[in-house]
Amino acid sequence: MSMKRPLIAIDWGTSSLRGARLGTSGQVLESREFPRGILTVPPGQFEAVFDELFGDWMQAEGALCLISGMAGSRQGWQEAPYCPCPAGFAELSQHLLWLQPDRMALVPGLSCTSADTLHTPDVMRGEEVQIFGALQLTGRDNATLVLPGTHSKWVQVHSGRVMQFQTFMTGEVFALMSQHSILGKTLDLNGAFDPAIFLQGVGQSQRAGSVLHHLFAVRTLGLFDRLSAAQLPSYLSGLLIGEELRTQSVPLAQGPVVLIGSDTLTQRYSLALQHLGIACQSHGAQATWAGLFALASACSHPWTFKP
Amino acid sequence: MSMKRPLIAIDWGTSSLRGARLGTSGQVLESREFPRGILTVPPGQFEAVFDELFGDWMQAEGALCLISGMAGSRQGWQEAPYCPCPAGFAELSQHLLWLQPDRMALVPGLSCTSADTLHTPDVMRGEEVQIFGALQLTGRDNATLVLPGTHSKWVQVHSGRVMQFQTFMTGEVFALMSQHSILGKTLDLNGAFDPAIFLQGVGQSQRAGSVLHHLFAVRTLGLFDRLSAAQLPSYLSGLLIGEELRTQSVPLAQGPVVLIGSDTLTQRYSLALQHLGIACQSHGAQATWAGLFALASACSHPWTFKP
Repeated sequence: MSMKRPLIAIDWGTSSLRGARLGTSGQVLESREFPRGILTVPPGQFEAVFDELFGDWMQAEGALCLISGMAGSRQGWQEAPYCPCPAGFAELSQHLLWLQPDRMALVPGLSCTSADTLHTPDVMRGEEVQIFGALQLTGRDNATLVLPGTHSKWVQVHSGRVMQFQTFMTGEVFALMSQHSILGKTLDLNGAFDPAIFLQGVGQSQRAGSVLHHLFAVRTLGLFDRLSAAQLPSYLSGLLIGEELRTQSVPLAQGPVVLIGSDTLTQRYSLALQHLGIACQSHGAQATWAGLFALASACSHPWTFKP
Repeated sequence: MSMKRPLIAIDWGTSSLRGARLGTSGQVLESREFPRGILTVPPGQFEAVFDELFGDWMQAEGALCLISGMAGSRQGWQEAPYCPCPAGFAELSQHLLWLQPDRMALVPGLSCTSADTLHTPDVMRGEEVQIFGALQLTGRDNATLVLPGTHSKWVQVHSGRVMQFQTFMTGEVFALMSQHSILGKTLDLNGAFDPAIFLQGVGQSQRAGSVLHHLFAVRTLGLFDRLSAAQLPSYLSGLLIGEELRTQSVPLAQGPVVLIGSDTLTQRYSLALQHLGIACQSHGAQATWAGLFALASACSHPWTFKP
């Protein structure tokens, strides 16, 4: 796969802004990261912020810029309506929102309506690009993918298309429980991650009952000195990630589950999945750049090279 | 049931302090409430605060004072170790922690070890008194009781003894999600409670999947304008209370479930239980006074009347 134009790949999220300048075979020539997530950008100022931070890259002849993430949300640069699943490269490229014709576009997020949400769509923005990137990197077009994070996603891809996905508020609930709840009073977030204690939490979450009940055990385990303050965050993490694994209902494709995310998170999910007998492989930030490159490459029109 | 001594009944919780002066047949003669929960009391100052606020009541001839709640915790006046279940009036009275012999005691909380918490005890402090009070008020000695709140309790009572119970962090998770999470950005906590929307949430929570997933629907229901900002808290409340009802595993005794708590909460649980075909009856704050009175009355020694 190659392109004849330089690609400026941008991942503009809620709290951070990352960009990479890619060569014609998709290699990263240069990358930049700023704490300029969309929450820091006043309405109407997106173009100015972009020009300030990436304007020099756009000087390159024929430069094309694709922007994924929350920049395409209602609170972002401009709203790129969700593209409904099933959706592949083709659908995404047809739904690109062009800010400047043939030069700069917002990648839409995906929406997915499943029977279990009373016809309320589940949604993602930014992860769709990582998904297609990971498919490129692994050479697969059938896979189950997991993108851990604040709002973790489980994704089914069949024949290169996202068929369905589910969101879990695992990361956000972990942050709230450890920082703002009564559990926070007994746990020490500076404690080193403890894999054995983490797997105890995973094991507990596989039992009957609710996470609303199991969470209270984090308090009593501390109260009765069964776990130290430094061990409790690992247990809490195991409980929540384990609950996600126990209850997700996306069909598992043949082959290892594909994990996409930071090393810290993919290591935890990897541990938990292997504990439950499920093989997996992990990919990091490069999935985003690979995804934007694949998306750019897969769309022949209107990205024909113009000298 | 009657006592020959005036009873000063005190419920000293985490964030509030309530007291009642009871007559010899258990009637409330006078009550007081202060925002002086244990979190506001410096170590070593519990006696001084008590004397300031209730010292006059203790002047009555033969006055006996029983104090329930977090005042008996490690962070309270003095630690009254948990009394293990099964436990009834007799066990509780044997575990009273006397601050002044025959005059003032802390009521211990209860602990309960069940197979599903890896031998970590579940715990309560203060609710045990409400439970025994409600049993007195209803004339029952077999019942399933629910005490909704920050940490909701489901309790099985058999032959007048608490056999087992389970805690759910339902109220705290509601507060965290609505005030500190991304859901808080789209919901309006000043909206009036909407029973129909609440029951939609209850219904959704009965479906397969996890509350970690269902919670995200609160965001998308707002995002897609399916529910208004004012309706979302009712839906969120239904999701969480419904999850608690779906997953609690305390055996249901014959007869209506006994709800003990504030009107606001017992009305919601009542709605949800009836929606699921489970009969219930509700009791409010009087359960605390009735419980302390019953506990005082059930202990003949050392509370013999001394003129």
